[in-house]
Amino acid sequence: MAEYNFIEIAKNAKIASKKLAVLSTDVKNKALLAIAEALDAKKDLIFEANKVDLKEAEGNISQAVFNRLKLDENKMRDMIQGIIDVYELDDPIGKTLLQRSLDTGLVLSKISCPIGVLGIIFEARPDVISQISALAIKSSNAVILKGGKESVNTNKAIMQVIQSALGLVDGFPDNVLTQVYSRDDVKEMLAQDKYIDLIIPRGGNSLVQFVKENTKIPVLGHADGICHIFIDKYADFEKAKKILIDAKTQYPSACNSVETLLIHENFTKKNELLAALRDVGVELIFNPESWHKEYSDKILAVKEVASIETAIEHINTYSSGHTEAIVTEDRENASLFMSAVDSSGVYHNASTRFADGFRYGFGAEVGISTNKTHARGPVGLEGLTIYKYTIQGNGDIVADYVEGRKKFNHKDLI
Amino acid sequence: MAEYNFIEIAKNAKIASKKLAVLSTDVKNKALLAIAEALDAKKDLIFEANKVDLKEAEGNISQAVFNRLKLDENKMRDMIQGIIDVYELDDPIGKTLLQRSLDTGLVLSKISCPIGVLGIIFEARPDVISQISALAIKSSNAVILKGGKESVNTNKAIMQVIQSALGLVDGFPDNVLTQVYSRDDVKEMLAQDKYIDLIIPRGGNSLVQFVKENTKIPVLGHADGICHIFIDKYADFEKAKKILIDAKTQYPSACNSVETLLIHENFTKKNELLAALRDVGVELIFNPESWHKEYSDKILAVKEVASIETAIEHINTYSSGHTEAIVTEDRENASLFMSAVDSSGVYHNASTRFADGFRYGFGAEVGISTNKTHARGPVGLEGLTIYKYTIQGNGDIVADYVEGRKKFNHKDLI
Repeated sequence: MAEYNFIEIAKNAKIASKKLAVLSTDVKNKALLAIAEALDAKKDLIFEANKVDLKEAEGNISQAVFNRLKLDENKMRDMIQGIIDVYELDDPIGKTLLQRSLDTGLVLSKISCPIGVLGIIFEARPDVISQISALAIKSSNAVILKGGKESVNTNKAIMQVIQSALGLVDGFPDNVLTQVYSRDDVKEMLAQDKYIDLIIPRGGNSLVQFVKENTKIPVLGHADGICHIFIDKYADFEKAKKILIDAKTQYPSACNSVETLLIHENFTKKNELLAALRDVGVELIFNPESWHKEYSDKILAVKEVASIETAIEHINTYSSGHTEAIVTEDRENASLFMSAVDSSGVYHNASTRFADGFRYGFGAEVGISTNKTHARGPVGLEGLTIYKYTIQGNGDIVADYVEGRKKFNHKDLI
Repeated sequence: MAEYNFIEIAKNAKIASKKLAVLSTDVKNKALLAIAEALDAKKDLIFEANKVDLKEAEGNISQAVFNRLKLDENKMRDMIQGIIDVYELDDPIGKTLLQRSLDTGLVLSKISCPIGVLGIIFEARPDVISQISALAIKSSNAVILKGGKESVNTNKAIMQVIQSALGLVDGFPDNVLTQVYSRDDVKEMLAQDKYIDLIIPRGGNSLVQFVKENTKIPVLGHADGICHIFIDKYADFEKAKKILIDAKTQYPSACNSVETLLIHENFTKKNELLAALRDVGVELIFNPESWHKEYSDKILAVKEVASIETAIEHINTYSSGHTEAIVTEDRENASLFMSAVDSSGVYHNASTRFADGFRYGFGAEVGISTNKTHARGPVGLEGLTIYKYTIQGNGDIVADYVEGRKKFNHKDLI
């Protein structure tokens, strides 16, 4: 049984979020540096905790999960560098997104502000804690984190180091970051739509699906990554080969790896292309049981299509809305594909593997979203913000406008 | 029983949405003009249908609902003008929101695109149909509309006129607008998260609350409008009086009318201010049963507070996140209030009644949102869009960057 009351935690996070909303960039940046320094100073303590987790997990989890769970000097360096990177990003809060004079002396502004309280549910990747904590602090959001049980000791150690660092930062509010550990906390978190404004699940398909099915809180993320590459009749063979091999083999378990190859029936080098894929160890499946399957392995479903329209229709039917690419030398086909395909990323002559916040130059990434609202594609700090409208008046009333004594005279000031 | 299958309708709307996504501005604008002309030419047919509804409703509904249901020449002129206004707005689709060179010959663009399929649930206001249809067409979204049963004849007549106009527009796809009429359709609509991307409820508190409680689809809107005005110790009496009277009496049933007056205990003209409110027929309640109540009438809950901090805390606890105002001559207090109050609109020395898309200069309004994600405050066409990322490459692969043969060189092009 947990030694805490989840609703109290959620309430306190909400209170903290209001204090964060008015916190200066300076204090937020000091907090980030303090965390980076503390992680470096106390990394041995974290490695010790990690060893306990690794020992308990050994034999019970797959090698892939074991690798994600394991922290070493390299990962710790990346964690610390990730915090420094967020420190160096512009403060996304308090930006004037629009400023408009409605009439003389009546000015409307649209100002970026934090969302409020984020609920983060992640699996066996303890490095998520520092990454999300840094992003949350910089964007003035409070956050409640729930990690996987495999990494509970590591997670506790990391959070302890972070909290003790934050405790020494003048003016930094309490309860900005809270971690919960019990399995029931996931259910509790998903029910707290009164206090939690956004849920970000970081993990496999089934976790994300479960979260989406079980909450009224907006969820930012993606379940599947069923990415497609369409080799047009007018494709360049060398580009097609290079892009397909990269998108399938460079990191097959990544969500932006290709799962389905659509190939125009009149592409003359079709057989050479398929042979090239087999040569690098890709297994080709011509009649898959489902076009919805994410292989996350060196396996590729292949379909011949009679036209670019059929390819687009296939993608818009079976894609998870993540990332798709066309390989063609025909500008018109490229342009049709890019406007008609309804996915968060649509590429021409480039590998689907580019779908990533760091590669896009966002500096840091919350995750990749396949949502059709709020934020789509790789989400950076901006995805953790919303805005409010302010009006600066001088005793202005609506009756003057409704009754014709005054007239609006909208004029953008920036 | 309905003579149609809701899932078929939803599927067809999804198909239509893909065609809309690539439709030219020209065809969309022709469709808008055709609708405006047809409504003007066939308004008598619509007035006839409206009379049937009015006759059936008489005695069974309140005067306010009757007034909303009733169409006359003035309302029809506004409906038609509303469509022309949307026609004149810039196309919100296909805008380049960001363009960044990732490396030589590798260009990332962020392009605005439609959300997909909108589900609109509205009560006895048949003019919503033309307004939402125009906004949906301009933003390339398909829409399924479900109106109130009181206006079913009017709704059918309006939709018939719109559909026959659209049928004559060259290149305009079928099934962009569909109306459903059965009560069960609301439940069906809320369940179609596979086909419907966003639900917009337009109606009273209980409708919006019901929708939010019963769907996994994102909902854009607001349930309550519990707006606050805080009269600071440093308030100017004349401004306070003018703003309060406007915000409470100019249109008491509007969602942006004030419901709670917070007044600093050291504001010297407190009694005069309360007397002025009573003079214009406002009933003051000093110990309301709940601070969460929306009166929608000339009733105002009043609370004395000892400090601006208490006022802010009260608002952040009880507000519905719609619109709040501070009346003060003190710049620091105004600035604190505007950054600390977490609502979609926060005003200094202006009436809360300004919270409105037309007054903000958006040209048209989908509604007002109190969401913390996607769109907040009065929502214009932009709230019906999302974006996709495109990459234009030339055979580019990620392995070149991971293995150090190439380096990203992010440079914004616009």
